[in-house]
Amino acid sequence: MSPSKEPTVSELPAPEPEHCPGPESEKAGQDEACVGCANKEICESLPKGPDPDLPEINKRLNMIDHKILVLSGKGGVGKSTFTSMLSWALAADDQLEVGAMDLDICGPSLPRMLGAEGESIHQSNSGWTPVYVADNLGLMSILFMLPDPDSAIIWRGSKKNGLIKQFLKDVDWGDRLDYLVVDTPPGTSDEHLSVTTYMKEVGIDGALIVTTPQEVALLDVRKEIDFCRKAGIKILGLVENMSGFVCPNCQGESQIFKPTTGGGESLCTELGIEFLGLVPLDPRIGKCCDSGQCFFDDYGDSPAAEAILDVVDKLRDQVELSLGDLSLKG
Amino acid sequence: MSPSKEPTVSELPAPEPEHCPGPESEKAGQDEACVGCANKEICESLPKGPDPDLPEINKRLNMIDHKILVLSGKGGVGKSTFTSMLSWALAADDQLEVGAMDLDICGPSLPRMLGAEGESIHQSNSGWTPVYVADNLGLMSILFMLPDPDSAIIWRGSKKNGLIKQFLKDVDWGDRLDYLVVDTPPGTSDEHLSVTTYMKEVGIDGALIVTTPQEVALLDVRKEIDFCRKAGIKILGLVENMSGFVCPNCQGESQIFKPTTGGGESLCTELGIEFLGLVPLDPRIGKCCDSGQCFFDDYGDSPAAEAILDVVDKLRDQVELSLGDLSLKG
Repeated sequence: MSPSKEPTVSELPAPEPEHCPGPESEKAGQDEACVGCANKEICESLPKGPDPDLPEINKRLNMIDHKILVLSGKGGVGKSTFTSMLSWALAADDQLEVGAMDLDICGPSLPRMLGAEGESIHQSNSGWTPVYVADNLGLMSILFMLPDPDSAIIWRGSKKNGLIKQFLKDVDWGDRLDYLVVDTPPGTSDEHLSVTTYMKEVGIDGALIVTTPQEVALLDVRKEIDFCRKAGIKILGLVENMSGFVCPNCQGESQIFKPTTGGGESLCTELGIEFLGLVPLDPRIGKCCDSGQCFFDDYGDSPAAEAILDVVDKLRDQVELSLGDLSLKG
Repeated sequence: MSPSKEPTVSELPAPEPEHCPGPESEKAGQDEACVGCANKEICESLPKGPDPDLPEINKRLNMIDHKILVLSGKGGVGKSTFTSMLSWALAADDQLEVGAMDLDICGPSLPRMLGAEGESIHQSNSGWTPVYVADNLGLMSILFMLPDPDSAIIWRGSKKNGLIKQFLKDVDWGDRLDYLVVDTPPGTSDEHLSVTTYMKEVGIDGALIVTTPQEVALLDVRKEIDFCRKAGIKILGLVENMSGFVCPNCQGESQIFKPTTGGGESLCTELGIEFLGLVPLDPRIGKCCDSGQCFFDDYGDSPAAEAILDVVDKLRDQVELSLGDLSLKG
């Protein structure tokens, strides 16, 4: 047998070499790492320096008090569901102005969950007007811009980045927003890099991480937490969703997605992250999301609603805690 | 109020203009549509014509009889779970040589589900040797190439494309494979475009589409079906996963993810797609996936196992039907 070695990602002759300064970097194509890279010429030809649209993006973002990213890692754990719940819950406080932004460009589901399917956004001199699902709750999603909602959005990352930039630069949220809740697709790729890069100067309050109890979900959450740390995003906390199902016939509880290794709470203890709580699997949540109804309006007394509202309270505490830190520093 | 109009995606000044020939096209940067596009210069500088690695990719792929993509649209519907089940089920026939390829680069979960976590691939003159989880079942995943499994894989689309190309070009599956099952991430973006582009010349048998019953999953499935049609990929059929949960206490059945509009079966009728069956939500499937056990070995008599094996049989029939078509044509 021929001598074998274990290749690692950094050894791959993939587009970016090890220590690649990044195609957006001022050194792109001219760094030591670029010598011999197949992308050198392309990287050199890319526009250099800070994004010229950054001042305008910052101007928009400065009108938003709190910016929260909803992240997961794995798909289907309830990111969009939780984003819609968080948005409804914040907007229930009529003192607050709330915005929800759907960055899941290939699979936008917030419009249906917030009951705004079939709507479209309008453009005026002040920018794109979001769709208002309540007086104080606006929503922006690519779905509002599609001629046919069933059409696949077959976009490579570069094109998605362009739209994300426009969402941050061109959406007119009004005079000010108290909260902007940003729903993201699964993973740690273009959308995540773009939104964190564009929002970096103004600052993100932090990320809410959603998971389900089973190990295959926690695997991806660990990667998402690593992403937050590398991207310098504060983790506001983790919520474990679909945590136990109460049979409507016998009231017996079943673990649909069994926590092989202790689930979200022990992961939080291990990694020093705030655990925000467990939300039980209640099929009425999915039903409300399918029909765009507010779950709290219909089932406000349910254990699931209480659990979600408790998570939202803790999340607001985390955000206010950050503010407290700031005022101490200032 | 100022006059407003509804912008659609095609009107966006996004990176690619309407009728963009695509950065890989021979016309890139020189098409009519490129006039005035901010990307013109970059596109012109990109290498043109067919990918020089295509002959080598085709050589590898020609040694594989059947190539099946597992797609969903929405995340968390059981794509990777079903990929692992399909792989175990095919490999149970010891006359078959089976390969599983994990294209969910930011969230690779097949290694855990197939009990191969902690393994690494080896490189020799003939290429990268996959990890064998059974004598006749090999697996390739980025997880085998990471120094630390908890590290985030923060890769933009372009970098993911490079790895996918290598997976197709450099993995040595042995003399031949009967089946290659390709697990994909949610959505219709870089991974989907790359794998279908690279495999186009040799041909893909088709796509298996996995969904859950609720409307928000079906929304994304419609987009995925549109993608298959646009990319010229045959749809082998659709399977509805997590379809009803039987309480272990009272044997009463609950719809955890309620089919607001009739679920997968009526979608298939509407769109003229083969419906392959319903798989009930059995928490023991998740438990087996978490621990890398073969569900059929442990719970082969369960209704879920029977349902899955029935889907696999129908899928093989579809693939053989395609072969029949071919021999009629030839």
